Amino acid sequence: MAATTTYLTGIQTSGMPHIGNYVGAIQPALTLADSGPDVESMYFLADYHSLNSTKDPQKLREDIRSVAATWLACGLDPTRTILYRQSGVPEVFELATILSTVTAKGLMNRAHAYKAARDRNAEAGSADLDAGVNMGLFNYPILMAADILVMETNYVPVGRDQAQHIEYAADIAGAFNHLYGENYGFPVPQGRYPEGEGSVLPGIDGRKMSKSYDNHIPIFLPENRLKKLVRRIPTDSTPVAEPKDPDSSVPFRLYEQFADADQVAAMRKRLEAGGTGWGEVKDALFETLNATFAGMRERYEQLVAADSELDDILADGAERARTRARATLARVRYAIGMD
Amino acid sequence: MAATTTYLTGIQTSGMPHIGNYVGAIQPALTLADSGPDVESMYFLADYHSLNSTKDPQKLREDIRSVAATWLACGLDPTRTILYRQSGVPEVFELATILSTVTAKGLMNRAHAYKAARDRNAEAGSADLDAGVNMGLFNYPILMAADILVMETNYVPVGRDQAQHIEYAADIAGAFNHLYGENYGFPVPQGRYPEGEGSVLPGIDGRKMSKSYDNHIPIFLPENRLKKLVRRIPTDSTPVAEPKDPDSSVPFRLYEQFADADQVAAMRKRLEAGGTGWGEVKDALFETLNATFAGMRERYEQLVAADSELDDILADGAERARTRARATLARVRYAIGMD
Repeated sequence: MAATTTYLTGIQTSGMPHIGNYVGAIQPALTLADSGPDVESMYFLADYHSLNSTKDPQKLREDIRSVAATWLACGLDPTRTILYRQSGVPEVFELATILSTVTAKGLMNRAHAYKAARDRNAEAGSADLDAGVNMGLFNYPILMAADILVMETNYVPVGRDQAQHIEYAADIAGAFNHLYGENYGFPVPQGRYPEGEGSVLPGIDGRKMSKSYDNHIPIFLPENRLKKLVRRIPTDSTPVAEPKDPDSSVPFRLYEQFADADQVAAMRKRLEAGGTGWGEVKDALFETLNATFAGMRERYEQLVAADSELDDILADGAERARTRARATLARVRYAIGMD
Repeated sequence: MAATTTYLTGIQTSGMPHIGNYVGAIQPALTLADSGPDVESMYFLADYHSLNSTKDPQKLREDIRSVAATWLACGLDPTRTILYRQSGVPEVFELATILSTVTAKGLMNRAHAYKAARDRNAEAGSADLDAGVNMGLFNYPILMAADILVMETNYVPVGRDQAQHIEYAADIAGAFNHLYGENYGFPVPQGRYPEGEGSVLPGIDGRKMSKSYDNHIPIFLPENRLKKLVRRIPTDSTPVAEPKDPDSSVPFRLYEQFADADQVAAMRKRLEAGGTGWGEVKDALFETLNATFAGMRERYEQLVAADSELDDILADGAERARTRARATLARVRYAIGMD
């Protein structure tokens, strides 16, 4: 057993990330890869999870490529880490089948995502609380446990809203270890949660930036579309000459996240003094976003092209991930008496 | 696409079959292999199903070998058919994951095996109707659908008590075909049910022969233990000299299934005339069972030995089964947009 500590980050593949994901998820996750020589950082694209919501094959394909290209363009180094598609490691699905046999149905009944679906049905007055719930959703905590356990993961960096999934993976590992621990035991995974609240970027309507609110700024919007979108961010009608509250303004709050501290301080002063309009903040925001992402965007465009090296990178990652997965599954199969 | 019709028979791996299984399941299933040149007969050992109930690795291993050796010893020809372990075809588990995403949870809620478990909890006064239900049991209809669909099965020969599983597999195939049929469609499988009631052998206590009643005669009991077990079958105390009703006697009803028609007719006459005791029927039954199974038992003992060719036979079957499974899964993955 290597003395390495393994971090595993799951990546949703529901279309191109936005700049809120970049600040809140991608950047923090990428710093893990710099955590030192004893840390193995693994990242997987949870593509079979997307299949629960995306039944359009072409969209699924594009989303997966787009998300993979985004993370690579944002700086994920596939030579120092392992980046792979869930669908590229079929050992995950056999392990999920095995874990099902040690997982109480009651645990799944209490899963947040499932309960939320039932609550929505109840609110809508549906007689069948399971209406519209497919078994992919109901089983997803087991599949996620398999994702985590097949890599003998120690730590899973996630937002606090995902804590239950990690607890479930730990519970399922515990149930397996209780039954078969004499022969083999999984490391019990732990969540690694962001300190404090984490950075939550406002969307262009002032609410939390989220695709589901349709208030987001995609990371790799072409320059002209980025400019238009930033221009469209609503601001209040304080006249240019008046002093302004920078923190009440979405453009400033976004600018704050991407500009240098000096630039941010200077802009804050000028807004508070009066004589600076929101249009100027928007221009500065556009310039900053464009400067931040232009290089990455270029790399993204290369990677997302049909004939790029993206598929090779993912195939190589899958092969390295499978080396681990095969070893774990072989131990598990022996432990349960299947080999 | 070959013009072949595929029959797929699932085999439970919960320990050595009994002579009731031989008459009611093994013999009818083996006749399929003789159904002509256009029929591909496949048989799989549903070993991951056993994992729902058997958490003892050594017992699981022995049960699987024992059942595989039994079917081969009973005449399954692995060169004319394909015999494989479910666990030897990992494509099944990925397909189950895919099928989950098109399977309504409501369908699983209504599955007989699951509802029976809830009924038992209700009868026992348990507040939690899902107590003791694991997700392997709850998901089993999906796994079985994957077993069937991955082989592009046309017909599944099963008892009528298994009809729901086949209907579910057909429903799930239909749901998939509805969504993705433009790209790929599964053949919709059908059950092939025995005509009439089928042969149901009495157990030594007169109830239906069943392991769960512990009234069964294992197929390959060693000769001396078979003799003892037959001797122990209860009979009424009609004196030897008296006429007897053959059909009221378990030894006669078993004898009837295995002896030649002439022998059976002769024995019936002698019993009805009086002067023949039940001990004589038991002796005849033992001789007949021993003659029927002695050759198979010898073959069974060879196959079940640790260094036999059994593992090679199963590995070869798995490889041939995987050739089909890989082709199906590749078509499915492309259809859903995963490749």
